[in-house]
Amino acid sequence: MNKQDLAESWAAKVQTLPGERVELGRGEPLRLDCGVELGPFTMAYQTYGSLNSERSNAILACHALTGDQYLAGAHPITGKPGWWDMMVGPGKPLDTERYFVICANVPGGCMGSIGPREINPATGEPWGLGFPVITVADMVRAQMLLLDHLGIERLFCALGGSMGGMQVLQLAASYPERIFAAVPIAASARHTAQNIAFHEVGRQAIVADPNWFDGEYYRHGKVPRRGLAVARMAAHITYLSEAALTRKFGRRLQDRSDVTYGFEADFQVESYLRHQGSSFVDRFDANSYLYITRAMDYFDLAADYGGILASAFQDTPVRYCVISFTGDWLFPTSESRDLVRALNASAADVSFVEIESDKGHDAFLLEEPEFWGTLRGFLFGCGEQLGLTAP
Amino acid sequence: MNKQDLAESWAAKVQTLPGERVELGRGEPLRLDCGVELGPFTMAYQTYGSLNSERSNAILACHALTGDQYLAGAHPITGKPGWWDMMVGPGKPLDTERYFVICANVPGGCMGSIGPREINPATGEPWGLGFPVITVADMVRAQMLLLDHLGIERLFCALGGSMGGMQVLQLAASYPERIFAAVPIAASARHTAQNIAFHEVGRQAIVADPNWFDGEYYRHGKVPRRGLAVARMAAHITYLSEAALTRKFGRRLQDRSDVTYGFEADFQVESYLRHQGSSFVDRFDANSYLYITRAMDYFDLAADYGGILASAFQDTPVRYCVISFTGDWLFPTSESRDLVRALNASAADVSFVEIESDKGHDAFLLEEPEFWGTLRGFLFGCGEQLGLTAP
Repeated sequence: MNKQDLAESWAAKVQTLPGERVELGRGEPLRLDCGVELGPFTMAYQTYGSLNSERSNAILACHALTGDQYLAGAHPITGKPGWWDMMVGPGKPLDTERYFVICANVPGGCMGSIGPREINPATGEPWGLGFPVITVADMVRAQMLLLDHLGIERLFCALGGSMGGMQVLQLAASYPERIFAAVPIAASARHTAQNIAFHEVGRQAIVADPNWFDGEYYRHGKVPRRGLAVARMAAHITYLSEAALTRKFGRRLQDRSDVTYGFEADFQVESYLRHQGSSFVDRFDANSYLYITRAMDYFDLAADYGGILASAFQDTPVRYCVISFTGDWLFPTSESRDLVRALNASAADVSFVEIESDKGHDAFLLEEPEFWGTLRGFLFGCGEQLGLTAP
Repeated sequence: MNKQDLAESWAAKVQTLPGERVELGRGEPLRLDCGVELGPFTMAYQTYGSLNSERSNAILACHALTGDQYLAGAHPITGKPGWWDMMVGPGKPLDTERYFVICANVPGGCMGSIGPREINPATGEPWGLGFPVITVADMVRAQMLLLDHLGIERLFCALGGSMGGMQVLQLAASYPERIFAAVPIAASARHTAQNIAFHEVGRQAIVADPNWFDGEYYRHGKVPRRGLAVARMAAHITYLSEAALTRKFGRRLQDRSDVTYGFEADFQVESYLRHQGSSFVDRFDANSYLYITRAMDYFDLAADYGGILASAFQDTPVRYCVISFTGDWLFPTSESRDLVRALNASAADVSFVEIESDKGHDAFLLEEPEFWGTLRGFLFGCGEQLGLTAP
């Protein structure tokens, strides 16, 4: 496949993806942290439920590293339920009979929003590594333009887990007037050295793949499948916990009664990881993986406020609910506690809930009734305070 | 370089490595767990100190995954101190004025003992993946042949960290009559699902490297450098702790005052990891990495005793000292506690010491005075019981 074919094939595929698309930054470009001015650019997003007449019931759900705008219902590529399908819908914690839920694919992503796989209008070719490095703050700026487009002055709530929680914190710090309540989940105000280290392993696995072609694999009709799969495998371990891996797999063998004395996937956990790696490649772009991990590495909210995290929340009117999980070692509770301390130091309105769970970082995506109940209750209480009306 | 040249070049390099070499398994081959009979085969080893006249002061130090026989003094390839240089020498915990310390490169390794990089006499070419998969029990069997060669009926002590500790446990369980005392350090009686998962990531990184050539890279004059480096990077994170990474690197930048908005090693932790990866490749063989990780994955001592770990130690005369480190999340203290419980259930003579350290799994290789003091004291006490004489 030549580069023209490949670009057209991806463009055609994107066109078939369901959901909304909007061109933003046409009048005034989006000025990125790196200095590049981006615009016009496309944001792809989904909405669930209806906006009420006061335009006051909008919830912005922010996705994590490998998430996208498909929160609920079947994912158009994998056919599996969206990443928060259990959370979003009529009667669910993000009750679509009550709230208007918005989720946008972040810039740098690969599900229709501008990113390295999309066509750079200046060259007519995919951006590749010519795409500017974006930050979590850039992601939030883009989402504020989306809210402008939707005519939403103030969100009822922004929430998200992991990188989604970073966006929530950045939004609440930079645009306190545009948000009533904020729920950062399994998140942190900065990426730690260990977090950066794991991301760097994934990036090195990708760039070591000869099919990566310095990020220009699109034009070679290739995909750095093996490198991206290794990156995903390494990351996936960090999303779980030792307890969860032991419970799910232990040392059980895969379809055999004895080890093979070889390098096949003798153990269930090996087979599972290989599957996680290879299936990820079918739905995610390797360059997007580089860009989004980099955005997370760069995230350090306090650094923008003279190194004092509390200063990020000075005089904030936002109601916070910080949620962490006991079994999460990637974004451990200690990070959430640091955040809560900073919010307390700013005299912010903050609740903190640590959910008992041994499911690891991914707990925010899994069945966790206590977590759901917490979120439901917090949103309901905030709705009462705001005098929220149903659509 | 053609394959003949390459084989000769490696053979020549091995010949220049200092230390002892012995051919074992000539009369009776070593029967491996996989069923293959190995022999004759070479074991490369080092000794430090002198054997006393009763031949009763021998300590077997067992190396970990990426270790080798060069315990003390300068390593012949890296020029850096051997992995237990701080531990072994006159007046040190493994006092060479008192003990005769032996350390052998495990079969499957790459520092002179038989392994995938060595020449298979049947073909005249490097073994590559034709080398049989070895187990921790096979490593121990080979070391018992080495003891026979050295005329040592019973070791004063066997000790080692990580995979070294696995060998100690296997030796004590299989050959209780050949060992007076045993010190498994930062070890476990079985590899957990999470341990296997991290190893599988490393293996997949290696086999994804096009220079791996299905394990036949020797004959292509290539080395799967990038794959092996990624494997090492991923593993290296697991050897440290989040606290250690934060203390050593935090979010500090490498030789720059601001981030580059690119994919260079902006952060010190990235630069450090890249260096760990690339320097490892200069001293280690990719296929050995596959074989030795596999041996660790297969290790499950209880499985050989009907699933009851205590049965492995029934009526054992061996004196045990089990040592773990609080900051080790790869072989956490809980694994050592399980081991101690099993030893207690067998009414074994066992001490258990958990060392307070935030250095992670690698603590057993680092400056840890409390650990050194524990080891020194245990050995001294055992020496008194045995009536050990100086050489």
